[in-house]
Amino acid sequence: MRIVRSVAELRAVVGSRRAAGERVGLVPTMGALHEGHLSLIRAARAGSDLVVVSVFVNPTQFDDPADLAAYPRTEAEDVALAASAGADVVFAPEAGELYPDGYATTVTVTGPVAETLEGAKRGRGHFDGVATVVAKLLIAVAPDAAWFGAKDAQQVVVVRRVVADLGLPVRIEVGPTVREDDGLAMSSRNTRLDPEDRVRALALSRALRAVQAAVDAGAGARAARDAGLGELAAEGVQPEYLALADPDTLEPVTVVDRPVLALVAARVGPVRLIDNLTVTPAGTPAVDPASTGAR
Amino acid sequence: MRIVRSVAELRAVVGSRRAAGERVGLVPTMGALHEGHLSLIRAARAGSDLVVVSVFVNPTQFDDPADLAAYPRTEAEDVALAASAGADVVFAPEAGELYPDGYATTVTVTGPVAETLEGAKRGRGHFDGVATVVAKLLIAVAPDAAWFGAKDAQQVVVVRRVVADLGLPVRIEVGPTVREDDGLAMSSRNTRLDPEDRVRALALSRALRAVQAAVDAGAGARAARDAGLGELAAEGVQPEYLALADPDTLEPVTVVDRPVLALVAARVGPVRLIDNLTVTPAGTPAVDPASTGAR
Repeated sequence: MRIVRSVAELRAVVGSRRAAGERVGLVPTMGALHEGHLSLIRAARAGSDLVVVSVFVNPTQFDDPADLAAYPRTEAEDVALAASAGADVVFAPEAGELYPDGYATTVTVTGPVAETLEGAKRGRGHFDGVATVVAKLLIAVAPDAAWFGAKDAQQVVVVRRVVADLGLPVRIEVGPTVREDDGLAMSSRNTRLDPEDRVRALALSRALRAVQAAVDAGAGARAARDAGLGELAAEGVQPEYLALADPDTLEPVTVVDRPVLALVAARVGPVRLIDNLTVTPAGTPAVDPASTGAR
Repeated sequence: MRIVRSVAELRAVVGSRRAAGERVGLVPTMGALHEGHLSLIRAARAGSDLVVVSVFVNPTQFDDPADLAAYPRTEAEDVALAASAGADVVFAPEAGELYPDGYATTVTVTGPVAETLEGAKRGRGHFDGVATVVAKLLIAVAPDAAWFGAKDAQQVVVVRRVVADLGLPVRIEVGPTVREDDGLAMSSRNTRLDPEDRVRALALSRALRAVQAAVDAGAGARAARDAGLGELAAEGVQPEYLALADPDTLEPVTVVDRPVLALVAARVGPVRLIDNLTVTPAGTPAVDPASTGAR
């Protein structure tokens, strides 16, 4: 396991392996690794000769300075966990390495893909930050494939858009959301929930399952969404949104006649949480969320 | 000489040559090739094993639909000229190949580099369009080096910024402005000047030489600029700007104590023209404009 701090060293390490014909896999993370990340690293390990895990709390994608300040930073543990899951290289640059003085370039995705849901709630800067740092990482590592988690569903759609639009020669792979036994989607932010909020946070995954259950019972999109809202209300959780959306365009869906994304965001205590579930029409087999998305 | 229409074919053609260890050079153009472009292609030929010339009138960088509509399109001649100057491949895609349905990604450079001068006069969209298409071409071709003309001085600064900021692994080379015998900077738009405007257009290069002459005679930046303005006024040409600027940042310069850029833009009849000259302090040797610019 090698820890790399500079883009130049990263290129040297990866370039020599690629030149030898090896397949390079990248798992971009903001650190605070949990089982969700580790499942992505294992998938990358299975599909690559060289696995690079980036650990970078990207300041430009935080709309809220308090959220950035509170974001957990646990590099020593991250390095050990990444190694245990099969990483060969951890790329953990300082912010100044990716954004030196005079830095002035942003990659922006426009349209519903980036402007609805998280884009609307967190502001335009969030996905600008995501699109820019992911483009930079993909250019620096030039991997054959990069792995992202389905939990950040809109991020996946935005990243697919950037990769397709800029023509970056990389395959985007999506790993399923990993959940605690009680259904809570794993998130680095979960560590900031106190015991009471930890219980209330279950309302998010319960709401998404209620949407699916209502669809299974023959409800339309609107009634299914209401069922989800009911679960949130029962825990006193005010959603920022609970939406049914097209998995490729993220445009609102009014009829569940194909697999669609149900997405939820809510603040539970001091912590903003998101979750999503691919909801399938009544009578069709459930879809692995990892297989949804653009293209 | 091979004409390529799709990014996929381009990657296949270039990739096999790169894999064989050959050096790839790119000359991005909007076609209507003149001696300025040909000098860049010859320079790329001298420095590369495979020379790709892109010919693409990029719609997203035109602020003025009339300018886009009037921009000369002369593909058959361009292909013959590119071949004569040493091109191996002409990449001439349709707009839909680079911007298919659903396209939503823009590369933006913020700050004075992109927001002053041409950025202020043509609007933000101009350099967004330039930055985006150049990033896409550099990603598609992945050349060792790409050649740009010093005539589009601000474009060079913006491109250098994008390449540095996104970490694109390419060397940016700049070829000097090629001029007609009477001093007019070569431009694809010159063909749209009627005989009378063709004479008036000489005021731009004359103004830039007047700035240098004034500096040589000991004038300060302000008096030197006034000398340039006098040449424009003598021909009844209203400048959009005549500015002295730092070659790296394009911030305004008030003292010519190092080589600085003098830049001018003006409409002559129906045609908007630009030109620039690297102005050196009195008593220092003239600088080849190709060697100026960031980094």
